[in-house]
Amino acid sequence: MSFIKKNKNCGEIRLRNTNETFVLNGWVSSRRDLGGLVFIDLRDRSGIIQLVIEPENRPDLYEKAKEIRSEFVLWVGGIIRERSNPNKTIPTGLVELLVSDFGIINRSELPPFDIADGIDTNEELRLKYRYLDLRRPELQEKFIIRNKFYQIVHQYFYENNFLEVETPILMKSTPEGARDFLVPSRIHNGRFYALPQSPQLFKQILMISGFERYMQIVKCFRDEDLRSDRQPEFTQIDVEMSFIDQEDIFKLIEGLMQKTWKEILNIDIIAPFRRMTWEEAMTKYGSDKPDLRYCMEISDITSIVKNSEFKVFKDAIEENGRIEVLNAEGCGSFSRKQIDNITDLAKKYGAKGLAWIKVQEKDVNSPIAKFLTDDEIKYIIDKCAAKPGDLLLISSDKKYKALNILGAVRIECAKQSGILAKIKNQYSFHWVTDFPLFEWDEETNRFYAMHHPFTSPLEEDFKYLDTDPGKVRAKAYDLVVNGAELGGGSIRIHDNNIQQKMFDKLGLSAIEIEEKFGFFIKALKYGAPPHGGVALGLDRIVMTLSGTDNIRDVIAFPKTTSGLSLMDGSPSNVSNEQLKELAIKIIDEVNVNIT
Amino acid sequence: MSFIKKNKNCGEIRLRNTNETFVLNGWVSSRRDLGGLVFIDLRDRSGIIQLVIEPENRPDLYEKAKEIRSEFVLWVGGIIRERSNPNKTIPTGLVELLVSDFGIINRSELPPFDIADGIDTNEELRLKYRYLDLRRPELQEKFIIRNKFYQIVHQYFYENNFLEVETPILMKSTPEGARDFLVPSRIHNGRFYALPQSPQLFKQILMISGFERYMQIVKCFRDEDLRSDRQPEFTQIDVEMSFIDQEDIFKLIEGLMQKTWKEILNIDIIAPFRRMTWEEAMTKYGSDKPDLRYCMEISDITSIVKNSEFKVFKDAIEENGRIEVLNAEGCGSFSRKQIDNITDLAKKYGAKGLAWIKVQEKDVNSPIAKFLTDDEIKYIIDKCAAKPGDLLLISSDKKYKALNILGAVRIECAKQSGILAKIKNQYSFHWVTDFPLFEWDEETNRFYAMHHPFTSPLEEDFKYLDTDPGKVRAKAYDLVVNGAELGGGSIRIHDNNIQQKMFDKLGLSAIEIEEKFGFFIKALKYGAPPHGGVALGLDRIVMTLSGTDNIRDVIAFPKTTSGLSLMDGSPSNVSNEQLKELAIKIIDEVNVNIT
Repeated sequence: MSFIKKNKNCGEIRLRNTNETFVLNGWVSSRRDLGGLVFIDLRDRSGIIQLVIEPENRPDLYEKAKEIRSEFVLWVGGIIRERSNPNKTIPTGLVELLVSDFGIINRSELPPFDIADGIDTNEELRLKYRYLDLRRPELQEKFIIRNKFYQIVHQYFYENNFLEVETPILMKSTPEGARDFLVPSRIHNGRFYALPQSPQLFKQILMISGFERYMQIVKCFRDEDLRSDRQPEFTQIDVEMSFIDQEDIFKLIEGLMQKTWKEILNIDIIAPFRRMTWEEAMTKYGSDKPDLRYCMEISDITSIVKNSEFKVFKDAIEENGRIEVLNAEGCGSFSRKQIDNITDLAKKYGAKGLAWIKVQEKDVNSPIAKFLTDDEIKYIIDKCAAKPGDLLLISSDKKYKALNILGAVRIECAKQSGILAKIKNQYSFHWVTDFPLFEWDEETNRFYAMHHPFTSPLEEDFKYLDTDPGKVRAKAYDLVVNGAELGGGSIRIHDNNIQQKMFDKLGLSAIEIEEKFGFFIKALKYGAPPHGGVALGLDRIVMTLSGTDNIRDVIAFPKTTSGLSLMDGSPSNVSNEQLKELAIKIIDEVNVNIT
Repeated sequence: MSFIKKNKNCGEIRLRNTNETFVLNGWVSSRRDLGGLVFIDLRDRSGIIQLVIEPENRPDLYEKAKEIRSEFVLWVGGIIRERSNPNKTIPTGLVELLVSDFGIINRSELPPFDIADGIDTNEELRLKYRYLDLRRPELQEKFIIRNKFYQIVHQYFYENNFLEVETPILMKSTPEGARDFLVPSRIHNGRFYALPQSPQLFKQILMISGFERYMQIVKCFRDEDLRSDRQPEFTQIDVEMSFIDQEDIFKLIEGLMQKTWKEILNIDIIAPFRRMTWEEAMTKYGSDKPDLRYCMEISDITSIVKNSEFKVFKDAIEENGRIEVLNAEGCGSFSRKQIDNITDLAKKYGAKGLAWIKVQEKDVNSPIAKFLTDDEIKYIIDKCAAKPGDLLLISSDKKYKALNILGAVRIECAKQSGILAKIKNQYSFHWVTDFPLFEWDEETNRFYAMHHPFTSPLEEDFKYLDTDPGKVRAKAYDLVVNGAELGGGSIRIHDNNIQQKMFDKLGLSAIEIEEKFGFFIKALKYGAPPHGGVALGLDRIVMTLSGTDNIRDVIAFPKTTSGLSLMDGSPSNVSNEQLKELAIKIIDEVNVNIT
């Protein structure tokens, strides 16, 4: 099983190499015996090249080649020559290697699926045989992009004088929001480490330590019920700076995005990115991460129809609701069935119904036209800047609920109108700013921090902290591209009194605060500098760069939505000795798998 | 608490900046009120500069400055001028900033210890207030070195066509050697993930996936009883390559070490490094990681004294032992007490005693001289190439035990002779190769893999696998500098039959193999390429680069030797709800802290 080492990568051979002699190593992608000739496509990470064995001249090689099958590992020596039947779809397609000698380095059983791009094998099988799936060039390409992105990130922050610092993976459990993964301690039985949901406190501690500029590409963990675009472990680009304001963070990250899009996609992105308050994003687009590649804005027509006799509007207004209209531009041609489907979508978001008006050259087509005066219709069209061919979709409900419904409807209209397909290679970056500090939770009847409890309020809203916390805006921001959130951050609280107040507002008791965050509050008392930062979702950015919607395409060894690794079978059973050392016991079998 | 942002770093100001106006942000390192003048040393990450407030000209500032204390955070505006009393020990020592305005951004309580280099505060207090300890310039310097090293590593491997790939932190438990940290699954109650001791199987899987060149700077975890130079989580530079041999790995890593030592320490390291087999390292230096900055070799004098009547030698030889001599060069001046101490050390390593011979100009001084003939003494001196002034230390025992004892003695002699102090800025890199494949464990009466069970045997030793496994050498190697192991690796097994055989020899049952490694054996059947790699201890390398013996100096948030984080108090208690969701229970309190 010795072999001769390659001196060339398959995918790098070109016409200029004709008559040169190379040794290649790689995998058999396919083998065709045409009687007169044996053709083998040999694959390595760089690409594929055609090998040819001529039985006439080398009957010995022909004989030896008979046992070659797909995915065998070969070393091959030979000379490059021009192909008589060029294949212009691959970079090496003009040449082939005429084999003068070869050896089988390793054999392969028959793979359970074809190792080729665009296969439609079910994902479960592909995850089980991840090592075979990862041989597919289209999947490898995504990891090459991911790798390039890492390098850009490291280099960019280094040049900007950041220190990469590793924060602990084994840390303290401080669940607030998502669940922690726990790690039982063997030395201190009964006590647990937690895996970080983010290194939030540690990066703030580093600012208190005077590091001034910190960054890290870091694994984070959330034990949540997974959605299809989530993983229990994910990677974030974690950044924190001292003595700065929000604009410094924006400028820094805009530079990174420009560099990345230029170097990986050769696309020039214009900066500064548009800044939009959360309030504007919500009222205009019904979303805190609007896709701004297309227009389709929302308008508030409450005042126009405030005297309308139309019962739906009247009821909503009486309950302090709003009448909001989405101008689905160019969607006037939607069929009744399409509009019904969109109404069903709206209902999923809690709408009772969805009124619509098709704007036409001379009049409108609408089931509610009869309830509205001509002036009302005219003002509505005017307010929405609607043109003939546009479709107006109307939601009447509590303000943010109505907006949220129309936000979802907006995306669906864009999809169905065919706009999304046309703008798929465009990128619209923007910042959403001034998020609310708190979110009221009806279920638990308390405020939660919309970002996290370390986010600074806007100075001008300090006054509402006691009187009307729901009104307080935060120095919090999200980076959005094409309707997806790439990351978010905030200016943090650096005053320990305000931090204490914040915890109070969140309903944490003094004991809870001390137990969970005591060390941090203490650190804030020793000269904390003003600081803020951002965390970008690395997996999400690589998905955007490589044009996939499947997070599992950009993670080498992903888990299923139920947290299983199908390849190695984790999580798995462990021995009783292991559990005994940890002084833990699994609760009776009945509970197993019932949560 | 608003502030004016800095436009200059404290440590970058020089004489050429005289008469320029700057705004600085930083921490008060010290404050001296000399009546006539107030001097403040202001510190940021870049360094320290002196501020001066003149009460005569600015009584308002003088008044305001009265409340300034150590570690307060300030913004300061002013003009640079030459100091009348220059301080040549710091780079900014020729200038000072005459304050024209300032503000207190944040206050600080009195720190529990002085934030200054070379403090002797006990480490426990410093770990508890890690954020204050990290403000000390000498500690920050180590993280600046660590950061530079990261960048060198990323760039080097990128330029060498490696793909950085992240492997999972939540993986399968396959304990073999060290203990795994476990993570209970909430979704699949009763089952556990494990944190990786190393991504060994995943990097091999990536080779089977055709990635060819993989690298990662990755956290690894071992739940061991910690020694002072170990941490439960540590960082390794993990590398794997396909279609290569051992020399390719050596060349790659030598290049990295040359680049690192040049860029960080401005030291030229000569490559290729010396290669030395494990057998040579053991027989010449009594260690598998010998420090080659000094000589002091071991010689086998068994054949010289084989007919000696000296009982100690005679007994050892009769029991198939060896008589091994360390030439502790230049240690002939050691006092009787020093030799006694060295003998005590030898006893810790299991020696029954330690014979010694001081070589003098004309004769020898030795308690055992009387048992040896003149010829024997002459031959011993000759064999050891000993000169007058040398000290010969003799151990008689089983071969590797005797060697191991003398290996420890060798280091101690180097220390006591003062050699180590003289060569402390020299670096001697070398590779130790051809490690034994197996290690026999007397306690469990079985073989263990000396590196790990995926290490390939030398082809020429295949024949001993069945007949004499202890004799089989492995394609395994360690990188050693100055007596410390920086990392190690091996050429792996890529043939699934040999892999199976390896597991058999390790006494794993078919069921165990299938449960733990079934997925991997399966992967080996689908065209595994020849491959090998190495893992370097990043923490250890940074320790070497920054000249510290304390691993906690190069980890931002380290744990104590009992695995505690004194700053945040982890591991900590968690709520019953958390445990209930995980379906685990802590075994009765009696066991707590008794393991």
